Amino acid sequence: MKEFKYEIKKHIATVSKSNDGQIALEVNLISYNDAPAKVDVRTWNKETGKMYKGITLTHEEAENLGQILLGM
Amino acid sequence: MKEFKYEIKKHIATVSKSNDGQIALEVNLISYNDAPAKVDVRTWNKETGKMYKGITLTHEEAENLGQILLGM
Repeated sequence: MKEFKYEIKKHIATVSKSNDGQIALEVNLISYNDAPAKVDVRTWNKETGKMYKGITLTHEEAENLGQILLGM
Repeated sequence: MKEFKYEIKKHIATVSKSNDGQIALEVNLISYNDAPAKVDVRTWNKETGKMYKGITLTHEEAENLGQILLGM
């Protein structure tokens, strides 16, 4: 199986945290398998560092999504 | 295993589509297992209807995420 690598290039912001602070929904710039960094929105376990399900966006998608969410 | 149910209450918008139109990144209001609808951002296979990985957000998280994405 191909090795899965990722590198958090830049932490953008924390969208929300669970009451105990253990689970955080974050926006980061992440490079997967040495590819150019993409906008990454997902939850993380802040104690174990485990990443959960999320989405990766191009900058164009990120801008489009931002407008859609604020237009709701 | 507990049955997994979801209902798309309202399609909000399509963020982007693959060139062949088969894969779409969408924002929907979805009720999971009869719970109150949440803002759902994920990719879908438009031919098979299969849902892929994504995130579910409260309205507060959706607003917060929108501001973060537009502020990048």
